[in-house]
Amino acid sequence: MKKLNNDLILRVLAGEKVQRTPVWIMRQAGRYLPEYMAVRAHHDFLTMCKTPELASEVTIQPVDIVGVDAAIIFSDILVLPEAMGMNLVVEEGKGGPRFTNPIKDKAAVSVLHDADPASDLRYVTDAIRLTVERLKGRVPLIGFCGSPWTMLAYMVEGKGGEFVHARAMLYEEPSLAHQLLDMLARNAASYLRAQHEAGADLVQVFDTWAGVLSPALYEEFSLRYIRQIADALRTDVPVIVFSKGANHSLEKIASTGASAVGVDWTVGIKEAAARVGAVVQGNLDPAVLFARPEVIEAEAKKVLGAAPEGRHIFNLGHGIMPGTPVSNVRKLVETVQNWKAR
Amino acid sequence: MKKLNNDLILRVLAGEKVQRTPVWIMRQAGRYLPEYMAVRAHHDFLTMCKTPELASEVTIQPVDIVGVDAAIIFSDILVLPEAMGMNLVVEEGKGGPRFTNPIKDKAAVSVLHDADPASDLRYVTDAIRLTVERLKGRVPLIGFCGSPWTMLAYMVEGKGGEFVHARAMLYEEPSLAHQLLDMLARNAASYLRAQHEAGADLVQVFDTWAGVLSPALYEEFSLRYIRQIADALRTDVPVIVFSKGANHSLEKIASTGASAVGVDWTVGIKEAAARVGAVVQGNLDPAVLFARPEVIEAEAKKVLGAAPEGRHIFNLGHGIMPGTPVSNVRKLVETVQNWKAR
Repeated sequence: MKKLNNDLILRVLAGEKVQRTPVWIMRQAGRYLPEYMAVRAHHDFLTMCKTPELASEVTIQPVDIVGVDAAIIFSDILVLPEAMGMNLVVEEGKGGPRFTNPIKDKAAVSVLHDADPASDLRYVTDAIRLTVERLKGRVPLIGFCGSPWTMLAYMVEGKGGEFVHARAMLYEEPSLAHQLLDMLARNAASYLRAQHEAGADLVQVFDTWAGVLSPALYEEFSLRYIRQIADALRTDVPVIVFSKGANHSLEKIASTGASAVGVDWTVGIKEAAARVGAVVQGNLDPAVLFARPEVIEAEAKKVLGAAPEGRHIFNLGHGIMPGTPVSNVRKLVETVQNWKAR
Repeated sequence: MKKLNNDLILRVLAGEKVQRTPVWIMRQAGRYLPEYMAVRAHHDFLTMCKTPELASEVTIQPVDIVGVDAAIIFSDILVLPEAMGMNLVVEEGKGGPRFTNPIKDKAAVSVLHDADPASDLRYVTDAIRLTVERLKGRVPLIGFCGSPWTMLAYMVEGKGGEFVHARAMLYEEPSLAHQLLDMLARNAASYLRAQHEAGADLVQVFDTWAGVLSPALYEEFSLRYIRQIADALRTDVPVIVFSKGANHSLEKIASTGASAVGVDWTVGIKEAAARVGAVVQGNLDPAVLFARPEVIEAEAKKVLGAAPEGRHIFNLGHGIMPGTPVSNVRKLVETVQNWKAR
């Protein structure tokens, strides 16, 4: 096993005592960073994902530039469905990623195939290996994938939005949805395991579109398959589960045995922590980073003061927004890293 | 007072006994209807809003075509900010409405003026008068406006989305936000009163973007001003409050004294009703209307069976989506209108 100089996040996830709250930021390798945009100016988004040298470079940027306590591999949740047979197009800033062959029926599901991470997603594991080598143990590296529901939502709808056709499939053809979700859960588990074996110290499941489901549909079509992934992995690798907009089900998310539960900013972190029991991750409103430094410090301290000491990984409640001033991100990271509960 | 042949909704709102659950559908005068599209083909969206003859025509279409138990005046929540000095552009289907002069500072707020409904929004009250005349008491007519927060969100951001700059204003310049929200609440109350005086039997406050706020911000910057509107009106006209995505605060919404609380589909209607106490409106997932008729019937009956008898106005949990088959909407309305609890 590699030796980490900063293993705060892993120790929080293991329930060990830590000196301070660790912090990382969803989409920290992203468009708010001029250094990211400089790379992006010469390569399209998917080329960056699929070129380990480039993915590794932008993965490490926020560690160098804003000083976060973890790196997260630069990639996209939709590369797994792509590896299973979907045609992915990503035009960043132009309405987001989309599939040119959205799933309309059983036949479209039956032509999908299991992805072999060692070949179909080799560019991800290579990027992880290269990043681990370059990080030299400075901070842990996070691997990730989309939740089965969130991947299905894009695969059926073709693109982002309110996912009305994907939701309609759950009502209209629940057995087809279950068949696809089970396949996605198996593939996600195997993909996350491959990321861990390549050097990712922990993994996060991004259930970005949990919030468009009713609590009943969420439990049947999203949580069930997140549980399947967590069951397959959690004895070997810490798993953080983030179902955005599913505050109605925090207790149930915790019951998957996830090492930590991510929470968005639409629930108080104190209430969320009480309901989760385990470690919570979050939950500053990303909009705070557009305010003055004093406001950022005050709002960050509200979260820190309300979160359970030693059971908290600081993060935003959703991805950092393009246009966020980098100096504000540094201010946030410093505030968290200098904070003492008492 | 005019005599209504179908006053089911008003009787539910007044706590009187009714024979069956009434139903209307948010955005029922909209793009799913070929008859609406036929009018829209010759007129842009704002022209339709501002021409009483056209607004009245499309307002009545769903009463004739799908048989709903109420009409809602065809308009947009952003015509009030426009009447206060904002420059509104609506390109329906092209990213939605936007303001070309988003508010960036105190100076931009100070040039706004109170709207005089009798002149600045005369086209709305004229459309209401004409619609009441044409409806001949068949069903009640609903007036509406946006909540102060939802209007501010568009006014500051300029367009729809996650409203990160609007949220940032709440953190960065809370006193400026309060100044603008108070002005919006006063104008909304006066606008709704004018709609009532022109013939709207009840009104709804659409707080479409409540869900992007934390519970604390929601209470301080949205609910407070909805309460201001409800306080100004509720002794004279029934007020339905719909804060989409604010299920964390259902009890507080009920405490405004609203005649009914609208609920989206991300909370069970039974739980929502228990928490609200008063009348609830909602909450079928609009995506259900893309499924087969048998599925629509079954899902509608689940809502009907879980909702409190006599304290429920059936509706979707959000606006009906473009592309929804009209026959499915008819099936839904029939299911609700033929349903007997026992």
